[in-house]
Amino acid sequence: MYIKYSFEQLNKFCCDAFTKFGFTEDEAKKITDVLLLSDVYGIESHGMQRLVRYHKGIEKGLIHVDAKPEIVFETPVSAVIDGHDGMGQLISIEAMNIAIEKAKKTGMAVVTVKNSNHFGIAGYYAKMACDQGLVGFAMTNSEAIMVPTYARKAMLGSNPIAISMPAEPYPFFFDSSTTVVTRGKLEIYNKLSKPLPEGWALDENGKPCSDAARVLKNIVGKNGGGIVPLGGDTEPLGGHKGYGYGMLCEIFCSIFSGGLTSNHTHIGGKGGTCHGFMVIDPKVFGDADALKERFSLFLQELRDAPKAEGQERIYTHGEKEIFASADRMKNGIEVNINTVAEMKDLCDYLGMDSVEYLGDVDFSNATQSSYK
Amino acid sequence: MYIKYSFEQLNKFCCDAFTKFGFTEDEAKKITDVLLLSDVYGIESHGMQRLVRYHKGIEKGLIHVDAKPEIVFETPVSAVIDGHDGMGQLISIEAMNIAIEKAKKTGMAVVTVKNSNHFGIAGYYAKMACDQGLVGFAMTNSEAIMVPTYARKAMLGSNPIAISMPAEPYPFFFDSSTTVVTRGKLEIYNKLSKPLPEGWALDENGKPCSDAARVLKNIVGKNGGGIVPLGGDTEPLGGHKGYGYGMLCEIFCSIFSGGLTSNHTHIGGKGGTCHGFMVIDPKVFGDADALKERFSLFLQELRDAPKAEGQERIYTHGEKEIFASADRMKNGIEVNINTVAEMKDLCDYLGMDSVEYLGDVDFSNATQSSYK
Repeated sequence: MYIKYSFEQLNKFCCDAFTKFGFTEDEAKKITDVLLLSDVYGIESHGMQRLVRYHKGIEKGLIHVDAKPEIVFETPVSAVIDGHDGMGQLISIEAMNIAIEKAKKTGMAVVTVKNSNHFGIAGYYAKMACDQGLVGFAMTNSEAIMVPTYARKAMLGSNPIAISMPAEPYPFFFDSSTTVVTRGKLEIYNKLSKPLPEGWALDENGKPCSDAARVLKNIVGKNGGGIVPLGGDTEPLGGHKGYGYGMLCEIFCSIFSGGLTSNHTHIGGKGGTCHGFMVIDPKVFGDADALKERFSLFLQELRDAPKAEGQERIYTHGEKEIFASADRMKNGIEVNINTVAEMKDLCDYLGMDSVEYLGDVDFSNATQSSYK
Repeated sequence: MYIKYSFEQLNKFCCDAFTKFGFTEDEAKKITDVLLLSDVYGIESHGMQRLVRYHKGIEKGLIHVDAKPEIVFETPVSAVIDGHDGMGQLISIEAMNIAIEKAKKTGMAVVTVKNSNHFGIAGYYAKMACDQGLVGFAMTNSEAIMVPTYARKAMLGSNPIAISMPAEPYPFFFDSSTTVVTRGKLEIYNKLSKPLPEGWALDENGKPCSDAARVLKNIVGKNGGGIVPLGGDTEPLGGHKGYGYGMLCEIFCSIFSGGLTSNHTHIGGKGGTCHGFMVIDPKVFGDADALKERFSLFLQELRDAPKAEGQERIYTHGEKEIFASADRMKNGIEVNINTVAEMKDLCDYLGMDSVEYLGDVDFSNATQSSYK
């Protein structure tokens, strides 16, 4: 069951909540901007659905509200940032802005971040570069959740890689975990009490498992099991490849920054998430307008390719987000009743009037207690 | 059935063959070095097995033996190279050397190549950077072979992404197509007359297909179908992600260089393969030795992680290649009898004494004519 809110309603709720947590209005606006883009893009797993984790992170002391990111090493093409356990979105917006400024001067740059926290959707930061005519890359590690090929313990995060690049009529926007699905997807299935599709997750013994609650509990408890890499849990369908792309992400995040690899984050009261950002100015390859034009043409050729039987369209990456955005800005954003219950709890916790922010919601259909 | 040769035997055969094709001794040695590393690493699909394609490429005029690569645009962090339809290995070694030189000066560099040909294993070029203490990335597009999610026509190449990075006791070496498997794998199954595993390929109507010969014929004839992206041909297991990583490769190769996208290569007597190379000097993130040390530690933690039931070891990327290399340099390299038959045909074509190079082989077990 879903409840529909306007962008403005969620924006006000979210800004006010983060201000109540102690962030400045500007900071709360930045955090909200990242979270809401996710809901607007239809990536339900990383928007309002995640508020409970930020709340818990702040409450447990994993996220330090007053922390300011610090550049601990830099060159004209690079920077290493210590996030000092601050809010991932604020650290990452600053990190990506530094990468953008450097890339505008030198042509390309990599900025790597340690001691941060969950930053929302990776695509937000890749899009920041794209919005300025540049090619943006954003990655993050996370609490260990990916079980490497032939292991039974999660050792890498969901380790998403996002890429955004200017094109017409809309940019290329690819944002994808290197696991077959994200933890957020499991959380959604858990909230809906639906069994997981085959080929997504492993239990604590390394065996296939369709019980979302069990897998999530094991991840939090570090009991073994987790989500399989893109390509599955064996080699014939390429599980070692997904594991390899997960390593690519880990290299740009924890290895370049000197922070914690995924298997060491979220242990003993420490978050320690790491991020990686890269920006390339297409001008380093000649005429950037011509480059954009040929890329746009290729994307159109992909959309125009012959369809598989029973299929009506081929999407290029970012198209679905554009359509979702148009729909949601006009018709409102649907939020799962269990997530709304969490938002109500957050109102109560922060002393906000939940009816004013969320309306007079009947929670008898909420099937789940919101806080773990 | 396999025949075993020493490294020296294959090296001599291959160097002499490429010299006979008209390459200088130095050029023949470079080409051989790329091809043989593949066989030594156990990547049977990209070594001697591919000679027939280079032969055909030269014969058909796709590969110009005398072509010299030319830098058509450059900045301190980048170069665009026109390969002028030369041999992919020679163009790519030069391109990667340029990327390495630039990265040593600036910290990082991207070199993109148009109008080239098949370059062998991507990993060879990534390894070139790694051998000098740098992080190397190599990519290539190819004849269209990957069917995008919900299409029934191949629009992208196998589009491999290779990454190599220094570590102890051996480097990280990841070299992987963004399709579920490579065309080379299909060629091997075809030579062995084995049915393809489920989830690898689609026929000309976009339906699952286990007939390697049919899929290969369709690819060459541009009749539709091909290989599915990593993650499969639908979205629940992440096929759109493999398609997205294929796009990442295409961006660095054809889009940055202004060359042909995969769907336009190998049409009308033109090859037009494009490559992309990136090098990052780990020194731009501080102490490169400390970085290498923490990366080595993480790789060891992965190998030491608890194993799945029934599994005895967890590999990190590049380990299998190290073991294969040690074994093959000591005990010899096994070559499929059908590939040896192709090598014999090549001897005959080039006026080389096949018995001297390959021994007195009984070809009655060769099941296939070697030239399409």
